[in-house]
Amino acid sequence: MSRIFVEPLRWRGDRLEVLDQTQLPGRHIYVTCRRVSDVWTAIKKLKIRGAPLIGIAAAYGFLLGTQKGSRIRSAAALEKSARRLRDYLASSRPTAVNLAWALRRMYDVSLRCAEAPAVRRLKALRVEADRILQEDISMCFRMAAHGARLVRSGASLLTVCNAGGLATSGYGTALGVFYRAKEQGKRIKVYACETRPLLQGARLTTWELMHRKIDTTLICDNMAARLMQQGRISGVFVGADRVAANGDLANKIGTYMLAVCASSHKIPFYVVAPFSTFDLSLRRGADIPIEERDPAEVTTLYFKRPIAPRGVHVYNPAFDMVPARLVTGIITERGVLRPPLDKSIRKMYGRPNQRP
Amino acid sequence: MSRIFVEPLRWRGDRLEVLDQTQLPGRHIYVTCRRVSDVWTAIKKLKIRGAPLIGIAAAYGFLLGTQKGSRIRSAAALEKSARRLRDYLASSRPTAVNLAWALRRMYDVSLRCAEAPAVRRLKALRVEADRILQEDISMCFRMAAHGARLVRSGASLLTVCNAGGLATSGYGTALGVFYRAKEQGKRIKVYACETRPLLQGARLTTWELMHRKIDTTLICDNMAARLMQQGRISGVFVGADRVAANGDLANKIGTYMLAVCASSHKIPFYVVAPFSTFDLSLRRGADIPIEERDPAEVTTLYFKRPIAPRGVHVYNPAFDMVPARLVTGIITERGVLRPPLDKSIRKMYGRPNQRP
Repeated sequence: MSRIFVEPLRWRGDRLEVLDQTQLPGRHIYVTCRRVSDVWTAIKKLKIRGAPLIGIAAAYGFLLGTQKGSRIRSAAALEKSARRLRDYLASSRPTAVNLAWALRRMYDVSLRCAEAPAVRRLKALRVEADRILQEDISMCFRMAAHGARLVRSGASLLTVCNAGGLATSGYGTALGVFYRAKEQGKRIKVYACETRPLLQGARLTTWELMHRKIDTTLICDNMAARLMQQGRISGVFVGADRVAANGDLANKIGTYMLAVCASSHKIPFYVVAPFSTFDLSLRRGADIPIEERDPAEVTTLYFKRPIAPRGVHVYNPAFDMVPARLVTGIITERGVLRPPLDKSIRKMYGRPNQRP
Repeated sequence: MSRIFVEPLRWRGDRLEVLDQTQLPGRHIYVTCRRVSDVWTAIKKLKIRGAPLIGIAAAYGFLLGTQKGSRIRSAAALEKSARRLRDYLASSRPTAVNLAWALRRMYDVSLRCAEAPAVRRLKALRVEADRILQEDISMCFRMAAHGARLVRSGASLLTVCNAGGLATSGYGTALGVFYRAKEQGKRIKVYACETRPLLQGARLTTWELMHRKIDTTLICDNMAARLMQQGRISGVFVGADRVAANGDLANKIGTYMLAVCASSHKIPFYVVAPFSTFDLSLRRGADIPIEERDPAEVTTLYFKRPIAPRGVHVYNPAFDMVPARLVTGIITERGVLRPPLDKSIRKMYGRPNQRP
């Protein structure tokens, strides 16, 4: 199994170091988060991004916040403080559910240890945060193994945004599938959508893929349909920020367009997402909150140079909602879910409203 | 009828002044073309762009070239020189057929006047170039009138690239429809796709629309499908660079994706194109040559700042081919062509292989 080539975050005992992904591929800079608000800002500003990774970052952010408040004594005050910490970190980004999921795990540990001495409570939280990170690594490898079975040698694959090592704790979701297929000796070619407005595909995905010596071609988002029309795409693999109970899902803006076009060209469309991305409390995709971001992301090229007249209105949703009917399968760490997705998801969980 | 707010080109008797559209909206600079090669370069480098407008520019370029060679005496030498001029200018861009169409008109006039004194020949060419420009203006108004009938008050419309005053000699094709609808007192809202890689939508279309006080919202290309999914688009209007005999057409990259998504959401998809854009010598869209441009257009943001790792492969087609089956209608100066488009086109022309 291939090693992780970059550490998107590093816990240093009293601080979290975060690789500033807004500076990639040009610059390789770690930002030090000493306060919870630093972690909040790093997530908000997309220095750290990718649904699985922001869950992990939030877990360490929770630990950092608990360290600062470790002199709190009463159980009631502790619970209040933990709840505040959880809600604050969860407010950094609304769409990806991994954030809420990781924070709930940390919060639960915090409550369980409410009576314990501070040092033991902090130890337990540290163990939980490390576990979330370790689980993510192994989930990625398992998803990759399941997904790679769906990739034949000679395949020409399409992806959007960055669902790679930089979006997780190291191996990736959609890109992990490509890495595994390549390790199995399969000859593959990957087209990466640049992913406007913030160009995670152009900046991060091509960088990761080229680092792994995968034959990589960059396209603008609006070129994907043409490739499909020409028969040059054999499969689409994307990540997800939240999957609803019926299999509808949210992922980076541009994903829905790819799903519609893939369906229209009868090209398989796979979602690669660990169970931490599922939110069975939501019945369908329309219930997933979709973050709208700063118009300046669109009007200025990567925040530097104006490209549109001053005062133009902008619509800048960060995510798309893809209905389950356009999804060929969801590749999870427990196997590939096939349509009808509502049933496969329910079956995988046992009960409809149980949390992962 | 609203006046033209900007002159994308100006003929000055011995030179052509061209508004440098690569500098818009930030800077309003005219480039002077004194030689044919200046016109060729202005077209190639997209200083002047838009299918109808490059036809007009090429006509004046032909005139410019003939002026330089006006001492040529023999009819055979004249014909050879005219052919060379025509082929040279036609080589500046391969996809839009208006270029070849306008050049053929100039070439034909040149041959007809081969025996005439140079001063009369130049006069005839000047008249023909002016006529091409004037015809374009009146064709735009007629297309706009036909198209505006398809727009109801309260409509929310989507367009890509710039099919406006900057792409023609003043009123536009797709945007002309919006201008006319607005003049008729209809309340409309327009979403402009930014149009990567060169951002003609963000830079030119929003600028034109805002100048005409039309409610304009800029989106990244990959956001269009989401708007459709939310029921926020009532019609798509685009230009065309070449229409084949069966109604298949080439237009800016990203157009095919919009057509697929519009069809999938049952949203009308209209093409606004004068007859000079039709090429009945081509049976179908697959025969239209599609220009592939410099990878640097994609890897560096509008040619300034790198956004992708050095050495990444890039696929950068400038145009899309949209099959006739996805087109609701083609709005021409003679009326709206409806499916089956091959039959309506044939009917409009009388005979299948007749040129406009």
